[in-house]
Amino acid sequence: MVLRQQRVVIENISPQIQCGAFFIKRVIGEKVTVYADVLGDGHDVIQAELQFKHVGDKSFKEVRMVDLMNDVYKADFNVQKKGEYVYRIRAWVDHALNWQHGIEAKLKDHQHVKSELLDGLQYLDYLKNNVSAKDKPYVTDLRQLFAEEDTYQKAIEEAISDRLHQLFINYPSRSLANTSKELGVIVDRKKANFSTWYEFFPRSAANKEGIHGTFKDCENLLPRISKMGFDVVYLPPIHPIGEVNRKGKNNTTNAEEGDSGVPWAIGSKLGGHRSIHPELGTEKELKSFIEKANSMDIEIALDLAFQAAPDHPYISEHPEWFRKRPDGTMQYAENPPKKYQDIVNFYFETEAFKSLWEELLAVTMQWVELGINIFRVDNPHTKPHYFWNWLITEVKKKNPDVLFLAEAFSRPKVMQQLAKQGFTQSYSYFTWRVHKHEIIEYMTELTQSDMKEYYRPNFWPNTPDINPYHLQGANEAMHISRYVLAATLCGNLGIYGPVFEYMVSDAMPGREEYLHSEKYEIKYWDWTLENKLTHIITRLNFARKSHPALQQTNNIQFCEVQNPQLIAFYKWDDEKTDQVLVVINLDSNYSQRGMLQLPEDVLGQFKGKGLTMHDLITDNSYIWADEWNFVEVHPALPFHLFHIK
Amino acid sequence: MVLRQQRVVIENISPQIQCGAFFIKRVIGEKVTVYADVLGDGHDVIQAELQFKHVGDKSFKEVRMVDLMNDVYKADFNVQKKGEYVYRIRAWVDHALNWQHGIEAKLKDHQHVKSELLDGLQYLDYLKNNVSAKDKPYVTDLRQLFAEEDTYQKAIEEAISDRLHQLFINYPSRSLANTSKELGVIVDRKKANFSTWYEFFPRSAANKEGIHGTFKDCENLLPRISKMGFDVVYLPPIHPIGEVNRKGKNNTTNAEEGDSGVPWAIGSKLGGHRSIHPELGTEKELKSFIEKANSMDIEIALDLAFQAAPDHPYISEHPEWFRKRPDGTMQYAENPPKKYQDIVNFYFETEAFKSLWEELLAVTMQWVELGINIFRVDNPHTKPHYFWNWLITEVKKKNPDVLFLAEAFSRPKVMQQLAKQGFTQSYSYFTWRVHKHEIIEYMTELTQSDMKEYYRPNFWPNTPDINPYHLQGANEAMHISRYVLAATLCGNLGIYGPVFEYMVSDAMPGREEYLHSEKYEIKYWDWTLENKLTHIITRLNFARKSHPALQQTNNIQFCEVQNPQLIAFYKWDDEKTDQVLVVINLDSNYSQRGMLQLPEDVLGQFKGKGLTMHDLITDNSYIWADEWNFVEVHPALPFHLFHIK
Repeated sequence: MVLRQQRVVIENISPQIQCGAFFIKRVIGEKVTVYADVLGDGHDVIQAELQFKHVGDKSFKEVRMVDLMNDVYKADFNVQKKGEYVYRIRAWVDHALNWQHGIEAKLKDHQHVKSELLDGLQYLDYLKNNVSAKDKPYVTDLRQLFAEEDTYQKAIEEAISDRLHQLFINYPSRSLANTSKELGVIVDRKKANFSTWYEFFPRSAANKEGIHGTFKDCENLLPRISKMGFDVVYLPPIHPIGEVNRKGKNNTTNAEEGDSGVPWAIGSKLGGHRSIHPELGTEKELKSFIEKANSMDIEIALDLAFQAAPDHPYISEHPEWFRKRPDGTMQYAENPPKKYQDIVNFYFETEAFKSLWEELLAVTMQWVELGINIFRVDNPHTKPHYFWNWLITEVKKKNPDVLFLAEAFSRPKVMQQLAKQGFTQSYSYFTWRVHKHEIIEYMTELTQSDMKEYYRPNFWPNTPDINPYHLQGANEAMHISRYVLAATLCGNLGIYGPVFEYMVSDAMPGREEYLHSEKYEIKYWDWTLENKLTHIITRLNFARKSHPALQQTNNIQFCEVQNPQLIAFYKWDDEKTDQVLVVINLDSNYSQRGMLQLPEDVLGQFKGKGLTMHDLITDNSYIWADEWNFVEVHPALPFHLFHIK
Repeated sequence: MVLRQQRVVIENISPQIQCGAFFIKRVIGEKVTVYADVLGDGHDVIQAELQFKHVGDKSFKEVRMVDLMNDVYKADFNVQKKGEYVYRIRAWVDHALNWQHGIEAKLKDHQHVKSELLDGLQYLDYLKNNVSAKDKPYVTDLRQLFAEEDTYQKAIEEAISDRLHQLFINYPSRSLANTSKELGVIVDRKKANFSTWYEFFPRSAANKEGIHGTFKDCENLLPRISKMGFDVVYLPPIHPIGEVNRKGKNNTTNAEEGDSGVPWAIGSKLGGHRSIHPELGTEKELKSFIEKANSMDIEIALDLAFQAAPDHPYISEHPEWFRKRPDGTMQYAENPPKKYQDIVNFYFETEAFKSLWEELLAVTMQWVELGINIFRVDNPHTKPHYFWNWLITEVKKKNPDVLFLAEAFSRPKVMQQLAKQGFTQSYSYFTWRVHKHEIIEYMTELTQSDMKEYYRPNFWPNTPDINPYHLQGANEAMHISRYVLAATLCGNLGIYGPVFEYMVSDAMPGREEYLHSEKYEIKYWDWTLENKLTHIITRLNFARKSHPALQQTNNIQFCEVQNPQLIAFYKWDDEKTDQVLVVINLDSNYSQRGMLQLPEDVLGQFKGKGLTMHDLITDNSYIWADEWNFVEVHPALPFHLFHIK
């Protein structure tokens, strides 16, 4: 058994995900606040420091931790570079500070400390060999003061001086220091925390009915999308669509002549994951679209759907990547008794898994090299968790700008696991959180549990796969309130654009699916139309752009409102340079009113004259000078977004 | 980066202390219930098993875990041997069970599954090579059924049969199984959980005033102590007491002629930690005392006080184990501005620490070899945590029967740390938990947090060091209620015997210390005296001996009682073969009454006719047939200890 002579124990370090098995997440400029239990034996003075560095840096930076009492210590650091940081804690019994502390206590007790001064010479000797040239004469003088008899009075003054204290702090000998294990942070660019997504099907982008949309058409939509304040345009898969077992309109199993198929059924004789559906355009046109978007501060996100149509070239070229049935045919995807005959899954248990993984990495990198830095990953929960960890790590090694959004609507621990394994952002249950208590409960889980360290939610009111019951046949107020909730609760949000904006909410009977879903057919949208929703979305998106409080998710506090249909919350940025208060009427039919209690942190800013609440949508301002304030919200404009001044 | 092809993730295993850095604790026969998050990708059937073994065993035993939903799995095992156990979790996608599950779903959906039967042959082949001889013909027959055309009906019946299911469960192929890290359990003998301590100073054991007690006198006290139902007798240090700077009566700094000194100031020219104070007797007499005690099912606990008086032989023989001041004198113990000139601490930071540690281990083992299996460790929090971990581990390697009680009354995390590092039992804050809400809060922390896995509290109403304010000048009812609380709340308890039993509670003014403390002088007790407290302690100790519900700490539930002076709780053993309900009046002056609500678990046992509550002290019985029951408790007998029948 090892003999460990250290006297300090370090444990219970937070943040820490699953004993350090996973990175916590931050974006550039964010703070990591670290807590740890640090304790020694006896009563000696202990010092602890937080050490951190970017993995690319040679040495650690150090910041001394603050003793919060009860053996808990705290310090923080800011992350400034993309990539991986590590942090750890070092702690020791500080004999020099302990010596000073002892002298102070004895002097207060009127004891003579000559012997203690002599004992202190060893600490001065250590300083002498380590302090900067500027301080060396002081230390040398002190040494003499301490050693001589007739300078006792002066010596004890200096022994307990702030100057000596500060030297001890700055030049610790760290004898028998103990160092914790290293923990990791993955640092992304700011978009990981703050992004506003607009999804549309490029094949429906044409400005005339009956025509297959092209990248050129997509390019024409960019000014409209930019004007609305979106900064990510996400396109469903742009690859050739399988022809074998192609799905027809409304998810029928037999496509008719002219049916365009499902973009997620990737691959045909025209190519696979590395190819572009010819009717959308060429690689050059895609590149032009990407560049045009980028020039408007919009990024293009593509879809990674790692599955194949039965006629995907992989199937003949790499049969070793698929599972065969005993009769020699391909094993289609199934979830018994359901069968998905237009899809063949990769067989991740194949012995040839290495070449499969490498190919999927190469596919991803091909699009990265074309200028794609964001991927929405289709059904990641049906591929192995460790595969994603590997793929995301490898891609980020080559390009740390790349972000991955996990499209998993699965069980809580599965969704959490994908985020732990490396997904930058994750779809969330927001889509189904409708009532006040559900929203508060879910936000509390996201922002008050460990999830806040690794799970970056992206709030989508709808997707092509999900037409939630509360939006089916819903009125304008319901649509607005769902958008406001997403836009103010969460740093990241997205809409399946035209369908949401134009409130096309017909559903397959009894199901949360769109009727005549765009997944199975080309649509025509009159993109010249604008409505009230268009304008409110626009104002909200621009409010998000100018308010850091809305560019993050975790700093949120719900307010007491005495009406179950009114939800209100307070948000702020880390530096508290920006603060907003949001009040939303969840009843899309009737006006609701009630008393709202300001949080203590806001009340503390009254300074005798109250606060100006400036509504960022209507431009009205109100003076709130009481703890409880009357609010009334009408479905015509079912929310207040107050900037607190 | 490693490519991990496994499809199952295992995490969040509990119990687990600080990421597995420390052992959880159990006594022989206890259960370890293990939970873990186990999840895969997609919808395939997953199996998880708990593996466990005593470190001395060659191979792991396995028990299949139960799926509790939401990706949480559970299983348990019993520990049967002293020493260390390890446990871990193994999990895999079970293709055979998944195949069977798929066939079932498809048959329910009226699909033809001939191809699936053929697919199943691979799982039968695996079984054929692995099942016992008894099942082999069945598997061979099945293989033929599945392969042939005209036996389809019979084949599908067998494919989904329980028999085949059970074979798949019993003989899993575990392909691509993932295995968690190993976690540890330290298993002690039963006394670690259930012990009743009586402390007295052997030098005060004489039956005449003015005489120094001896081991022979101690031996004469054993029948009395045994009759009261105690099973551990703990003696303060029995070594020669320092003569240099000896403390006088009432902790004065200058002893007078004839002052006997403090037993914890160990060492003089007569010897040190390996020697016996000559006036107590010889090693042979100590051995006789130990053996006599053992014959009455009483164990003798000695004190490990690792510190030296200034005249301890170590100081001249091993100056390298101590710290010198600049003037060459020994560094006395201090906690500035306080000085403890009768004590010199070991210098654990010495370069010679290895020989120091080895000597302290040898000292401990010397007493173990003499027959001592329990140590009360004095002030362990003033010696390094890692030292204790090493010492306790080494001693237990040689003799797993040895138990260590940590005498640390320090900050919560320090006390917890000592328990994590290996102390079998720990003194607790019970000594100062007086009011109902304090007691409930403290018990909740001990039994509902992680502490329940590693911190075994020992409840002491008083010690020679602590004469708590509520016992100073307190009446009989207060003494009884403090003993009842300790005896029923906690598996382990102890009293500083004669002082508690005879209610000698004079204090140093304004301090929680005894006046004329026995620490500084020899006392005379008339051990022939018995009082009401003697009899109630006796009855309680025997109730503990016959009621497993009282031989453990963690199974406890507090009951709602509508009176803040009445505290009530329900306790049970793991198997629920024994259940008690305790009601205590915390007001030592007045009768208190109120309505008590039975816990749901007790109500569930009513079966239409209520329950018999048998008071183990008065022998009265009551029928309780309602959820709420009236109780009244008088200070004359300030509690009910009901056995629930």
